[in-house]
Amino acid sequence: MKPIYLDHAAGTVIHPEVQEIISQEIIGNPSSIHDAGLKAKELLEKSREKVKNIINAQKPSEIIFTASGTESINLAIQGIARANTRKGNHIITSKIEHDAVLETCRYLEKEEGFTVTYLNVDTDGFVNPLDVEKAITSKTILITIMYANNEIGTIQDIAAIGKIARKNNIYFHTDACQAGSILDIDVTTLNVDLMTLNGNKISGPSGVGLLYIKDGVTIHPLLHGGKQEFGLRSGTENVAAIAGFAKALQLAQLEKETENQRLEKLQQKLISGLIKKIPGCSLNGHSKKRLPQNVNMTFPGVDAEQVIRHLNQESIYVSSGSACTARSVKLSHVLEAMGIVTTGAIRFTVGRETKEDDVDAVLQILPPIIQTLREVSQIVI
Amino acid sequence: MKPIYLDHAAGTVIHPEVQEIISQEIIGNPSSIHDAGLKAKELLEKSREKVKNIINAQKPSEIIFTASGTESINLAIQGIARANTRKGNHIITSKIEHDAVLETCRYLEKEEGFTVTYLNVDTDGFVNPLDVEKAITSKTILITIMYANNEIGTIQDIAAIGKIARKNNIYFHTDACQAGSILDIDVTTLNVDLMTLNGNKISGPSGVGLLYIKDGVTIHPLLHGGKQEFGLRSGTENVAAIAGFAKALQLAQLEKETENQRLEKLQQKLISGLIKKIPGCSLNGHSKKRLPQNVNMTFPGVDAEQVIRHLNQESIYVSSGSACTARSVKLSHVLEAMGIVTTGAIRFTVGRETKEDDVDAVLQILPPIIQTLREVSQIVI
Repeated sequence: MKPIYLDHAAGTVIHPEVQEIISQEIIGNPSSIHDAGLKAKELLEKSREKVKNIINAQKPSEIIFTASGTESINLAIQGIARANTRKGNHIITSKIEHDAVLETCRYLEKEEGFTVTYLNVDTDGFVNPLDVEKAITSKTILITIMYANNEIGTIQDIAAIGKIARKNNIYFHTDACQAGSILDIDVTTLNVDLMTLNGNKISGPSGVGLLYIKDGVTIHPLLHGGKQEFGLRSGTENVAAIAGFAKALQLAQLEKETENQRLEKLQQKLISGLIKKIPGCSLNGHSKKRLPQNVNMTFPGVDAEQVIRHLNQESIYVSSGSACTARSVKLSHVLEAMGIVTTGAIRFTVGRETKEDDVDAVLQILPPIIQTLREVSQIVI
Repeated sequence: MKPIYLDHAAGTVIHPEVQEIISQEIIGNPSSIHDAGLKAKELLEKSREKVKNIINAQKPSEIIFTASGTESINLAIQGIARANTRKGNHIITSKIEHDAVLETCRYLEKEEGFTVTYLNVDTDGFVNPLDVEKAITSKTILITIMYANNEIGTIQDIAAIGKIARKNNIYFHTDACQAGSILDIDVTTLNVDLMTLNGNKISGPSGVGLLYIKDGVTIHPLLHGGKQEFGLRSGTENVAAIAGFAKALQLAQLEKETENQRLEKLQQKLISGLIKKIPGCSLNGHSKKRLPQNVNMTFPGVDAEQVIRHLNQESIYVSSGSACTARSVKLSHVLEAMGIVTTGAIRFTVGRETKEDDVDAVLQILPPIIQTLREVSQIVI
């Protein structure tokens, strides 16, 4: 049986048109002034222009290519923090951010004298924009709230939070990695000063991401050297990956309306099927304001890791919580923040190549697995 | 005419066997516990093991994959500096390092209270190990000296400097990016605590590098998040690029003896041919203790940028100084440190696919270009 990959929030399958682009031979270093270098430079700048138009940035120089979403987030948070110490030392974020945000904030607290407010979320995983406003102090220099959550798919009201940030003259960053292929990512309507996107979440290549930095924002680079990327990210540009990333973003944004409808159908079928067939299970996160690719369910009385392993034996790949910390299976900090204490939460994320048959297979294979696991541990739901 | 690419120090052509590896489809995120994730994780760890054996490291956890040589260098310098503030705040480096080293040092001086000694070099571009020893103070926490220079190919006595560092209980880092395919890179005989390598200088992929960090070295990560790479470099691992990088390193190290002999013949032919045919030109850097791929010549009475453009019209690609800053054509900080003040220095770097015909072409095409440029500006040599 062909494996059924339902872990698209951890990493997508590269789009064939993107694969073609990233496999091309690029010999020149974009910094060289001969034709080989110029050719590489041209492809780089064409890609930047493409991204600029998609996210409705004002200038190409607002797009800084990085090697990952994590690097982009670190650049945003460390870069803003260190460049604005005269203004203040306070950062506002939420308890359900990706570890790239949380761990960067913790580092700045521990090592560099910053203070961080980690906002609570409600039981559906929403940050209340009023809570953001209340947390602002005269020392606040940055608000960073993710656009859509990687574990539960909850979509935050970024535009509203951005409005508050702007009113208070505080920089606002959003981690939009999970939103890049699904939601509108217009930086103007979102009211963001900084936005993170990456390749491997949108059917693009691994090893590439970007940080949108609104013109005029004061930020320090993380990586120093040859002053590539307008002096904000030194290192030879990974041109093929960048070109593939721009193409993936373009394809995803073009296809997103029809694709989202298709994903939502798969999502709804999976949710209703699981609820119907597996007693006691419940959806984590909001039923509607969530990414159409995401299904996160609690199955009481079972251990997520065992479920994943049993599904794996049937060549069905799912995850528990975020892949980036999945090797140390632990309680999800996202579910915990929502007040959900369980070790039985499974994340299914459908994607571009997921078919209805795949959902049918899960609905056929998973219920007896859950039943058996419950029987073994003599749990009755 | 097929272009003649003589800018291998700026970026190499990917080896066909490596291209095959980096073009493979890798779907899983190495942090996921299903089979797709495990497969990615296995390839990642096999690559790490391969590199470990090539550089004679003691443990796989001493190899931290990054997205570039620049990131590796920044991790080494910023990471050691910030983690060892209790021991001291002094760094020793040389005036001929890559900008990734120099700019990182300048940042730490300007923003974080570190002091840096930039050692002079002699007229051939050598750092005197005795100068390193003399520069050590009770506050010195790091010595960073490059293995082989990217502009003039000079090979430093890394083992001797490492011995001094060890004797004084100071961490020693070397940027070995230009040496990866050509020299021995055994971290034990080199006496290094940290070593930087990257992919695109050794016929490997762009967007990947590594930092060797000797077990027990105290260092802070630059990128925080999912704690990949033993907690020292968060972000989803770029598995295909890493596997390609490991393969490129293996191939280069296997082939290096015969390949170096071949490159040296090309190098010597180019040097002696240029000296014979172009009056007044002279080799920059040591005539023997230099990378066999590198020819850096001063052509008095001409401007390097014009020479590059004229050669470019003949589809011959060369550079002046380091590509990473080549877009802003300026005096080379390396040549300046050697006491050579010229705007007429050209770097030719041969590589794996360079043939004797290519050198013949340069020897035929370049002399009349130089002559014409000199005539135009009425310079007689």
